[in-house]
Amino acid sequence: MGESWIKKDGPEGDIVLGTRIRLARNFAEIPFPAVANREQARQVLQQAKQFPSSLRQLTNVKFYELAEVEELERQILMEKHLISPEHTQNTNGKGVIISEHEDISIMVNEEDHLRIQVLFPGLQLKKAWELANQVDDLIEANVKYAFDPDIGYLTACPSNVGTGMRGSVMLHLPALARINQLGNVLRSVSHFGLVVRGLYGEGSESFGNIYQISNQISLGHSELDMLDHLAKVAEQVINSERQARQYLLQEQNRTASEDQVYRAYGILTNARLITTKEALKLLSTILLGIDLALIPDLERCSVKELMVEIREAHLQKIMGQSLPPEERDRLRASLIRERLKR
Amino acid sequence: MGESWIKKDGPEGDIVLGTRIRLARNFAEIPFPAVANREQARQVLQQAKQFPSSLRQLTNVKFYELAEVEELERQILMEKHLISPEHTQNTNGKGVIISEHEDISIMVNEEDHLRIQVLFPGLQLKKAWELANQVDDLIEANVKYAFDPDIGYLTACPSNVGTGMRGSVMLHLPALARINQLGNVLRSVSHFGLVVRGLYGEGSESFGNIYQISNQISLGHSELDMLDHLAKVAEQVINSERQARQYLLQEQNRTASEDQVYRAYGILTNARLITTKEALKLLSTILLGIDLALIPDLERCSVKELMVEIREAHLQKIMGQSLPPEERDRLRASLIRERLKR
Repeated sequence: MGESWIKKDGPEGDIVLGTRIRLARNFAEIPFPAVANREQARQVLQQAKQFPSSLRQLTNVKFYELAEVEELERQILMEKHLISPEHTQNTNGKGVIISEHEDISIMVNEEDHLRIQVLFPGLQLKKAWELANQVDDLIEANVKYAFDPDIGYLTACPSNVGTGMRGSVMLHLPALARINQLGNVLRSVSHFGLVVRGLYGEGSESFGNIYQISNQISLGHSELDMLDHLAKVAEQVINSERQARQYLLQEQNRTASEDQVYRAYGILTNARLITTKEALKLLSTILLGIDLALIPDLERCSVKELMVEIREAHLQKIMGQSLPPEERDRLRASLIRERLKR
Repeated sequence: MGESWIKKDGPEGDIVLGTRIRLARNFAEIPFPAVANREQARQVLQQAKQFPSSLRQLTNVKFYELAEVEELERQILMEKHLISPEHTQNTNGKGVIISEHEDISIMVNEEDHLRIQVLFPGLQLKKAWELANQVDDLIEANVKYAFDPDIGYLTACPSNVGTGMRGSVMLHLPALARINQLGNVLRSVSHFGLVVRGLYGEGSESFGNIYQISNQISLGHSELDMLDHLAKVAEQVINSERQARQYLLQEQNRTASEDQVYRAYGILTNARLITTKEALKLLSTILLGIDLALIPDLERCSVKELMVEIREAHLQKIMGQSLPPEERDRLRASLIRERLKR
């Protein structure tokens, strides 16, 4: 697997960490995964194994049967947002297809037979959609999807019926959090028919002031219309965050903002024990400090990379061993000190 | 004025910052300061002006009329514990006599006509008492004290009648605070007829885990008996603090203790705004770290010195100007960064 989208910066990259398009697809005449028997699940997997050749003209992808992937590696895929938390558990009959640059992943036998995902850095909804669409077309050339001419694509959960599409943008909103406006802004997002989620999607907590905004329904509008709507609302949130950042830079607030950023730096470069949650919060503050040019000599990309490396599975992989929680906090602190000081 | 006791280390100096003996004395036939008229207050001051010559055979002292001392300098004397907070206000008719090493100070027309104080680093109750006694004798050779053969020295407040003596030890108790045992230990102190006070005496808040323990009554026992009792209780508290420190060094607690100390260091060397209260708390943690050899390359005495320099008046003197509170927080942070990094 190559360079992840997480480490790269894209359009509006100071606020938008990434864009995700997900298409839910199912094979015609095979029951949805929740009700499929072992043989049927296997049938889906067998078909999915052919996708690398279907997609060859577009990109290099690789098929993995999840039961054959070590638990730690599955966790890492989850931390990279390439598979969902649910997809790391009960691996029976599950698979994933991942492209070499990790911009395409296809979960097999998750809630639907196929969950085609495209992940891009920054705000690139249209571009991500185009790639997802290409992937979808190349797959559809060889298989028969469950599709109803009146309703559209059929999915396990009614909320995905229709286009089967969910577009998401992952936003870093530290300044809104700092001036206590995050609640207001995120509430207004839901008035536009969009959903706000934490770092790892549905039901997950928000860490490090990172939020995902997605369309809630996938029926009744074209994909491009829905993405256009999502982009417009995202732009509003980006605007609010940008205003909050300008506010933090105003003469009377500047020292307090610097104080916040340098305290975060001081703790991260000195702590001997640190949880993922606290580390993400402080790294978020440092990232803001870099974006506002309040703290020199730190690279944006290394801080973003660190925000992934400190997560449970990544950390254990870096350390080459599975670790009890207290050891993790110690090694996480030590990794952060080393990375930030170099 | 020379080197203050505050910067030096004395016996049990890892826990006992200093020892203070205070004798309350009044002139016979002159009303106590609260009820004396202007002329009578002046009479006291005039007598006190002769003390430098009375004390010459012992040490060099200097008389200051407080009305002629600038406000900032008065604040500094208070922060050095050479005069009380009350003695910095309404300076009319008030004076102070200070020895060149700042180990002796005599407040004139505070609550009593004279408050003879001796301040020593570390735990040195007997030695401090001997010096206070010498000062007292040399003064008494030339003036007539208000004294009742049955009761002893007469004082403005009944609680000081008798010996007029209060012995105090100033203790740094960060480990007891850390393991949440401070309340218990300090409560037990009061069962022994002793009083616990904050940094600047009566009614003052405790900052930086620094507490003063003093005898409550000054009647009914000889000075040496009372000091012996105080010393014994102080030793108990010192013991508890020492056990708490050992506990913090135990294998299973060591990393968490290091974490605490380094976080304090990280914040102090990076913050851009800091209040006296927070700074004292963090410097207290660093001092503990030095005492437990958890943090190398920092000098105990410079940290102790910094604990005084960051206080309002000292800070303004160092900066050469009077400052609004927010500016103080900024310059305090900058002073701390500079001092700790060198």
